[in-house]
Order: sequence, then structure tokens, then C-alpha cells
Amino acid sequence: MKAAPALRRPVTGVTAAAGFSAAGVHCGIRRKRPDLALIVADRPAAAAAVFTRNRVQAAPVLESRENLAASGGLARAVVVNSGNANACTGEAGRGVARRTAEALARLLDVPREQILVASTGVIGQPLPVDRLLEGLPSAVAHLSPSGAPDAAQAILTTDTCTKEAVRRVSSPRGDYTVGGMAKGSGMIHPDMATTLAFVTTDAWLPPPLLQAALARAVDRSFNRITVDGDTSTNDMVAVLAGGASGVRMEAADGPEAQAFEAALTGVLVDLARAVARDGEGASKLITVEVTGAATEQEALQVARTVAGSPLVKTAVHGADANWGRIIAAAGRSGVEVQPERVAVHIGRVQVLAPGYVSDFSEDEARDALSGDEVLLSISLDQGPARATVWTCDLTRGYVDINASYRT
Amino acid sequence: MKAAPALRRPVTGVTAAAGFSAAGVHCGIRRKRPDLALIVADRPAAAAAVFTRNRVQAAPVLESRENLAASGGLARAVVVNSGNANACTGEAGRGVARRTAEALARLLDVPREQILVASTGVIGQPLPVDRLLEGLPSAVAHLSPSGAPDAAQAILTTDTCTKEAVRRVSSPRGDYTVGGMAKGSGMIHPDMATTLAFVTTDAWLPPPLLQAALARAVDRSFNRITVDGDTSTNDMVAVLAGGASGVRMEAADGPEAQAFEAALTGVLVDLARAVARDGEGASKLITVEVTGAATEQEALQVARTVAGSPLVKTAVHGADANWGRIIAAAGRSGVEVQPERVAVHIGRVQVLAPGYVSDFSEDEARDALSGDEVLLSISLDQGPARATVWTCDLTRGYVDINASYRT
Repeated sequence: MKAAPALRRPVTGVTAAAGFSAAGVHCGIRRKRPDLALIVADRPAAAAAVFTRNRVQAAPVLESRENLAASGGLARAVVVNSGNANACTGEAGRGVARRTAEALARLLDVPREQILVASTGVIGQPLPVDRLLEGLPSAVAHLSPSGAPDAAQAILTTDTCTKEAVRRVSSPRGDYTVGGMAKGSGMIHPDMATTLAFVTTDAWLPPPLLQAALARAVDRSFNRITVDGDTSTNDMVAVLAGGASGVRMEAADGPEAQAFEAALTGVLVDLARAVARDGEGASKLITVEVTGAATEQEALQVARTVAGSPLVKTAVHGADANWGRIIAAAGRSGVEVQPERVAVHIGRVQVLAPGYVSDFSEDEARDALSGDEVLLSISLDQGPARATVWTCDLTRGYVDINASYRT
Repeated sequence: MKAAPALRRPVTGVTAAAGFSAAGVHCGIRRKRPDLALIVADRPAAAAAVFTRNRVQAAPVLESRENLAASGGLARAVVVNSGNANACTGEAGRGVARRTAEALARLLDVPREQILVASTGVIGQPLPVDRLLEGLPSAVAHLSPSGAPDAAQAILTTDTCTKEAVRRVSSPRGDYTVGGMAKGSGMIHPDMATTLAFVTTDAWLPPPLLQAALARAVDRSFNRITVDGDTSTNDMVAVLAGGASGVRMEAADGPEAQAFEAALTGVLVDLARAVARDGEGASKLITVEVTGAATEQEALQVARTVAGSPLVKTAVHGADANWGRIIAAAGRSGVEVQPERVAVHIGRVQVLAPGYVSDFSEDEARDALSGDEVLLSISLDQGPARATVWTCDLTRGYVDINASYRT
């Protein structure tokens, strides 16, 4: 007996794990594209979330944070709109987020505290709440275990593609799935109110354990595609653990919990890399890998500075093996780099050896810079620690998109 | 009786002050454009300099720092080449800078310790020292009190225009002049080994007093066109005080010294603004003014974050009054901004009033964004302190220039 196609779970995304359905519809905030997504758990799920650290926090961030605290870390649904960030909208905007949660809670017959709300889009414009509320019943009607792709589509803004990821875990206690979706395209400079990610799993963890695992996983994924560790007015990464697989974890230190955290980290790294690759105007994913640092923190600091350098990003765009810009960025990172000990590889081509020795084939280096994935490796020769950061190249497309974003 | 035209001092630049001559010639480091500049004082001048804080320090920076220390703060000449930064060139590069100083010292018959050396251009390539040394006698032969414009030309790289400035001071002790020149075009992102500035004056100050005044003046000028306070492998701002005017200052706290410092600051602000305006690909000078901060440091931090935001810079480029990006940047600055108290003006148009009230004419805002100078004013309403930072818009031209700089 085959399941009906409409009910077949997709292999990836937010309904890859059992016990979740999703939908993505058009409610009219955006002119034509889908702009309203739902993720709904069959029963109350353990929930955890990481929010922006920006002092300017959008209304949906405040609403979701408050609900998560009031529910004791349980959630039944996430509602996301694109096209309007509902940020810098004051008390009126706060009311809009509240009314959205209330309306969805009524439709699903669940407590309002179990609703998470997220928005993405332009800052400082009133969100047309009537359209959103009118669209909610339709979105609920479209909820389906196969709805992940529609939801992944409806949360996009300037993204050029959907971003979904999945990990399947086989454990002594049984098999389970971790799947998720993200949106984000201005991630080179994450001050754009754009990064959202949602993950579901059919494993079960107590909310505090889930929160701790999420915080560490975000630190190794989404916090490594930012230039400066900053987040924006609407950033939010949330995970819902429903438990439909029957796999339950209780202890923070068990190997089971570690395997879950590894899977969660894997999903978030996949999504974060996808966001970096789809950076506005980007033509290449750049991986910056720093080794030989005294501490992981120092490795991260150097990697972030190099990855954040517009001169490095434009050089990669132009396939120019300009290692001088790489070492100059490392030198201003704040880490006590010893420049004469630094080595730099572009892909497998060593463009700089310690002692400022540079003797390489320009053709080979250009080849290593010409694919759609570029690896920059910087060895500091100061210790055992390492870190990796992802970014994209800086192109005319970035300027074109952002010189005409709002209007 | 008129002075011969060739000897007439220009109204601005490094030979506006009496007692200095300058030259700019082509020695062959660059293909065609002038690439070798000299500034020479008639007698030993008090000298002070501020150098890059990058861990990667170019050979001329090391040479100049060492000479300035060895001479006890006296200098007779500055030699500058463009086209090659002599950075990341190891011991060989260090030898090149030393030989340059030695050769000029011999030609001028002065101690080597009284020579400052500066370079700008590509990083990590051996400087063709023979061409530089062969060009030096010609540069010396061209030295002239009217040589400032030639020198200002010879230090440029991707700059589209020369940058010169002057202040004249009338004091109870007599009149004197402070004049200078600068180069720099990648100043939006000052990790490009590009910023050099040289100032001369016919006043006299003891070297320690001159150094203190210079440090404060740089802090209020060149350190306010940087995104993050970072400097690069070759950055250098130097001032030579020759004393030909007869005006001498001895005490750090006297009104005379304050007037000198104000004039020096004025010259450096003019030069810094000129560098920001000529930022690579730039079409507009952007002044970011933060008022109502608790401390000047906090005002500066907010101003730098806003000025460094690529999303703000691209919005200004597109004449888009996207105040959401401005407040989002302020929110991630690290300062405890209270977003609901923030007001934002673009030129004279208030685009955001406290309490997230935004009601303005898009046409007026677009007009305020459409000139070649744009003022963004951010009021925090948290205290009495203020700060100003200068930057430029981010355009496709920036990408075009930097995706093909080295090759």
C-alpha cells in the first residue's frame, strides 16, 4: 500500500520529521509571491529559539520570546510572513504580532503561548495585518506533511532559492530525523533583518536541553556566516522537538544527546552555508579556514575579519590571488598575528609560505578561485586551534540589489 | 619686484609653508604616472608621525619609525613612492627601505636618521629598488618651493584627484601656515595599505608637543573616516615643523599651541574628507553625525557602525531614504541605544521621530540624498555628546576597481 502522494513526507525540510505539517501561501503582503508560512506540530513540541542580539528588536521577536517563556518551552506552531519585517513599528507593530499569534491559536485551538511568530522584509513600514489575518485560514487549510517546500518558498525575500536541510540519526533507542529550512540573502552583512531558520525533529528533548544544544549549534553555524557576530532586528532560529519517533533524551551529557546535537549542528551548518552561498549578488561561496591559532576564539576572530573584508571578497570575485589583502586583514583582526609565520593557501595552491615567501603559479591560483566554491586557508603557526567561517564574494549585483531594495 | 613664477609658493599643499620644497617625478615603478615624491625642509624640522596599528607593518613604516626615534624627532626629508607598498616583503623589503633612506641622505648630505620613507601600492611584490634609486637624483633636481602639486600627484594610486589643504594662522607671535597633502581611495575599508598624509608648517614646536598634537588631530580626522578604527600595512601621517616663520611654541597648554593644533586638525580633516569623498567608486561624500549620546566614545561607535554599513551606503547610493537600515546599524553598534528615542534626519528632512514616528516627503528625502554630499544625523536622546564620521556611498565602481586591482 502506498501513501497518497500528497501526504508523502519530503526527504528534507521542516516536514521531513514525523509529526509536523507545513504550508506556504500568498496572503497579499507581497504582490505575487508566497508570503505566509506555517509549521504546525501534531502535539505540543519542546521548543527552543535563539533571537537577534540587536538593540532594535522587531515585534515578532518580542512576541515569540514572551510566548516561549510563558509556555515553559513548548510550542505548537510557527507563523512566518515575508515582505514586511514588522520592525521599528512601535506599539502598533507589537499589537500586530500579538493578534497574529492569537488568530492562529484560535484556528488551531491551542494556547497563544504555544505560537511563535516571525517576520522578514522591509523595516519600518506598518504590516498590513488584515491581509495576514485573512490569509491564515487558507494557510491552515493547506497544512500538509508534504508542505515543507511551500513553506520554504514563502519565507524568502531577495533569496534566489529555497534552503532546506536534513539529517537522519540511527541510535540505540531508534531512528529519528532533524530537518529544517532557512531564508537569508544579505548575510554578508547581517544587519538586514533577514535571517530566519526553523528546524523540526521527531526526537524529544526537555526544553532546557534543547535550548542548550541549539545555542551551541547556532554558534557553530549561523554565527559563523556573520562578519562581526552581530545579528539584526528580526533574526531568529527556532527548533521544535515533537517526539513522534519515540526517541527521547533526558541527560545533557549522554551520547544520545551528543548525537542529536551533531545532527542539529549539521542541519544548521548546511542551512547557513546555503544562506552564505545565496548572499545578495553572490557568485561564489567562500570558506575561510584558520588553523594554527592559539585559541579557537582567536582563530574565529581572524577568520571573521578575513571573511568580512570587502577587499578579499572583491579579489575572490575577480579571481585575483591577492594574498596581500588576506594577510592585511588578518593583521588588523586584533589577534597578535605574527605575520612572518603566516601561510596562505587558495584551494590547494600555497600562495604564501612563512617568511613572506610567495612563489606560485598564477594560473593554478586563478583556477582555484574560479569555481563556485573557494577555500581560503590561513595558517598562523601559533597553536593548535582552528575555526571556519563562510561568506560569499562581493559583486556589482550586491550594489544593484541594495541600492534599490526599499523603493 | 615679482618672484619668478617657478619659485612662487602655491596657496596650498606641502610647500605652502615657508622653508619647504617638494618634487614629484616618474621613476618607473608605475608604467607612466608619476610615482616618486619628495618633501625637503631647508633645515632640520621637528617631526612627528602616526603609523598603522596593523600587525603587518610595511618596511617603510619600520624604517621611518626607527629613524624618527634615532633622530630624536627631527627630519629633513620625506621620500614617498607609489605603485608598490613594499609590504610583506620580509628582510629584502626592509633593506630596500633602508637603502632608499641612505641614498636620499647622501644626495641631501643629511643624516639618514632624518629621512622618513613611505610607500603605497600593491602588497607582497618586491619593490624595484633600482628604479627608485635611479630616480632619486632627478627628484632632488626638481625640488622647488612650488613643487607641492607635483608631489601631491606622485603619491596617488587609484585616487581620482589630488588632495591638498591649508590653514593660515595669525597669532600674537606672528603668522604661519600649515599645509598638507594626502592620498587614499580605499578608505571605506582601510585595509588597503593606502592612506598617507604629509603636513608641513613654518611654525616650530618641540617634537614631543608636535607628536601629541598630531595624535589628537589624527584621532579627529583620519581615524574618523575609518569603518572600525583599523589601519593598514602602510598607513602613515607625518608632520614637519620647520620654523621658518619665526613662530615658536614651547608649552603644551598655551593658547598658541591650541591654535596650532586647531589649524593642524583643520588641515587633516580637509584631507580626510577629501579621501572619503574620493573613496573607490564613490559618487557621494556621506557625513554621519551622531548627537545626544551619553559619551563621545559612544557617539563615535554608533557613527562608525552606521558609516560602515554597506546597506546604508548602498541605500544612499540609490537615494533611498531607508532609515530602517540606519537604525538597525545603530542597534548593532554595541551601544545601549534606546531605539524608541532615536530620531533620524537626512539633510534637513526628518525621516524618523522618536517613538518610531515616520512621516516625511519621499521627494524631499530623495532630494536630500541626491547631491554629492549627504548628511545623515542620528539623535540618540541619551546625553550631551556627539561625534562625526565621514564615508562615501558603495557603488558598482567599488567592485569593479577591486575585483581587478592587482592583476
